[in-house]
Amino acid sequence: MAEVGRMAHICTDVPLKLDCGIELSTIPIAFQCWGKLNERKSNVILIFHALTGDQYVIGTHPVTGKAGWWEQMVGSGKPIDTDRFFVLCANVLGGCMGSYSPKTVNPQTGKMLGLDFPVITVGDMVRMQVALLDAMGIGEVFCAIGGSMGGMLALEFAARYPERVRSCIPIATAARHTAQNIAFHEIGRQAIMADPDWAGGRYADEKRYPTKGLSVARMTAHVTYLSEDALQRKFGRSLQDKDAFTFGFDADFQVESYLRHQGISFVERFDANSYLYITRAMDYFDLANAHDGQLSEVFKGTKTRFCVVSFSSDWLFPTAESRAIVRALSAAAANVSFSEVRTDKGHDAFLLDEPEFTSIMRGFIDGMAKREGIG
Amino acid sequence: MAEVGRMAHICTDVPLKLDCGIELSTIPIAFQCWGKLNERKSNVILIFHALTGDQYVIGTHPVTGKAGWWEQMVGSGKPIDTDRFFVLCANVLGGCMGSYSPKTVNPQTGKMLGLDFPVITVGDMVRMQVALLDAMGIGEVFCAIGGSMGGMLALEFAARYPERVRSCIPIATAARHTAQNIAFHEIGRQAIMADPDWAGGRYADEKRYPTKGLSVARMTAHVTYLSEDALQRKFGRSLQDKDAFTFGFDADFQVESYLRHQGISFVERFDANSYLYITRAMDYFDLANAHDGQLSEVFKGTKTRFCVVSFSSDWLFPTAESRAIVRALSAAAANVSFSEVRTDKGHDAFLLDEPEFTSIMRGFIDGMAKREGIG
Repeated sequence: MAEVGRMAHICTDVPLKLDCGIELSTIPIAFQCWGKLNERKSNVILIFHALTGDQYVIGTHPVTGKAGWWEQMVGSGKPIDTDRFFVLCANVLGGCMGSYSPKTVNPQTGKMLGLDFPVITVGDMVRMQVALLDAMGIGEVFCAIGGSMGGMLALEFAARYPERVRSCIPIATAARHTAQNIAFHEIGRQAIMADPDWAGGRYADEKRYPTKGLSVARMTAHVTYLSEDALQRKFGRSLQDKDAFTFGFDADFQVESYLRHQGISFVERFDANSYLYITRAMDYFDLANAHDGQLSEVFKGTKTRFCVVSFSSDWLFPTAESRAIVRALSAAAANVSFSEVRTDKGHDAFLLDEPEFTSIMRGFIDGMAKREGIG
Repeated sequence: MAEVGRMAHICTDVPLKLDCGIELSTIPIAFQCWGKLNERKSNVILIFHALTGDQYVIGTHPVTGKAGWWEQMVGSGKPIDTDRFFVLCANVLGGCMGSYSPKTVNPQTGKMLGLDFPVITVGDMVRMQVALLDAMGIGEVFCAIGGSMGGMLALEFAARYPERVRSCIPIATAARHTAQNIAFHEIGRQAIMADPDWAGGRYADEKRYPTKGLSVARMTAHVTYLSEDALQRKFGRSLQDKDAFTFGFDADFQVESYLRHQGISFVERFDANSYLYITRAMDYFDLANAHDGQLSEVFKGTKTRFCVVSFSSDWLFPTAESRAIVRALSAAAANVSFSEVRTDKGHDAFLLDEPEFTSIMRGFIDGMAKREGIG
């Protein structure tokens, strides 16, 4: 069994049938885990990360050297309490932190897969994580949790494997990607593919990197993660280290400087091809698709307990999308609670210190744990 | 005097002092006009176009061959009635349809100005149009009208030259560009400048064109012009000429295909450097800046009658921005009416057939005309 905080890597030899029809075998899965698995294996919390997240939920990130992306939520005494739970997070299929992805080297050619990597879906990502659970001998999880794309995975997991998940917390997410979301992703992909250094996805072979294209993609996405109010409060029309306009195209405004920084620092830690594949998987996501658009059918008969959370100023995954999930769960007579957290921080609120959100998480998880006699 | 519908071009030899400190002389101003100037010269309606608009308000566009951008609003019997009014629209300073811009050829070098063109402001744009009015012997205008950036020019004109404008209709606009708006513009500029074919703005000399970068810039802007509801209604998750996902990076969704088309067709009619300069001018716009943020001071003592219009689903220039203008005008004891048009069409609604909007325009203009005995 994986040790606490150990960087881990397994290769499953169970064939993985993808939605595109391709079958994978012996793929690497990178993950991190914290806490101790109890004897009954009943204390597993599975965290699904977001589009540009990874398995480094807490602790020092090996590439950036920064703290984990969910330090305030996970750890000893935190809502996702590593003293009580065995917490697991795997890099998604297609991600660039060790799991099977366009960065994986094809042993036959010695080159990165690039666009030879198959187009994947959120369903495929979940299948990979189920293979990981199988490999670890874990039948069912106490709770599946994820924000944004992670919420899509949590919903997909609860929908396809209801017998393997006792509770589920989908945060700031949706049961399908909207036209506007697809539009923003398409802009990002076009920006990457427009960069000559993308080189048809073969940049690694050619020792190039689509820095500018990926940076523009990140800048675009980043604006959608923030609310207009937050941007106005943080930056407004303040100038960057100057008293007057320069009458040029340098970053005169703080918000420009901030965005450029977001773009540049992202490029250092993320793979351009991974970005293409993961955004595509999100675009394809529509949980009700196999049920003629009837989302309630997806959750028919589920025994999983759900806690749905949205943020009032999130315009990328607005509360209306969470309400649609809640309505469907209610129509399926599922056990569901719903909270819209009042905040001006936009979509990114799920990654930030939001006391009301933290308290909702703690309340639901503690209540479930008490109910099941865990801890 | 310019004839009806004649494509026109003048060169002013009045020096034009720009906000950056540079003084221009003998610059070309391209404009279109319709209707007859009456004897008193009291029936002038001045239309200011938006960021990517131009002086071809009605009639066939010389580059695209398409109809004008405001056919439903301007013409015989329309709210802006060319049977009664002398309607004038000039290509803005920095625009790419004939007025002085980065596309203007420097006679000394025989090359386009490119980045030798000075960084301009909305104030500079208005100064150029005032020079045009002067050259035409027009003292004051009956009404100044504009949507989006055009609304910024209308406000700037009414604020700086109150004695020259009897009424003003700022539509879907704001008295300052917000942090979010600056952010989206910065993304567009970075996309253009990231394109190696931009060549530091010298693409024309090198017989190249930043097609991909400008296209990404347009795609980004275009999404901000539409509401999420409109995108959902028009496209939703519908696929483009196919029944199933292709599991590739071609345009699977209609919304992707639509956006790509928007990008490509824009590139054919617009100049990349113009896009940089005009977006910069909009970012710099903050009408209250010279008055310590007190917008009401800007309009102190104005006799101009205002009709402010916003659209309920416009998230780029939301109603709150129009309300701020109305509050400032009220605080300055100005004569102002305000309407928020209910529509799901987003920012672009001002260019579309919106009966309520058309009726507001007709009502205000007719009322003003009756009041002034223009018939």
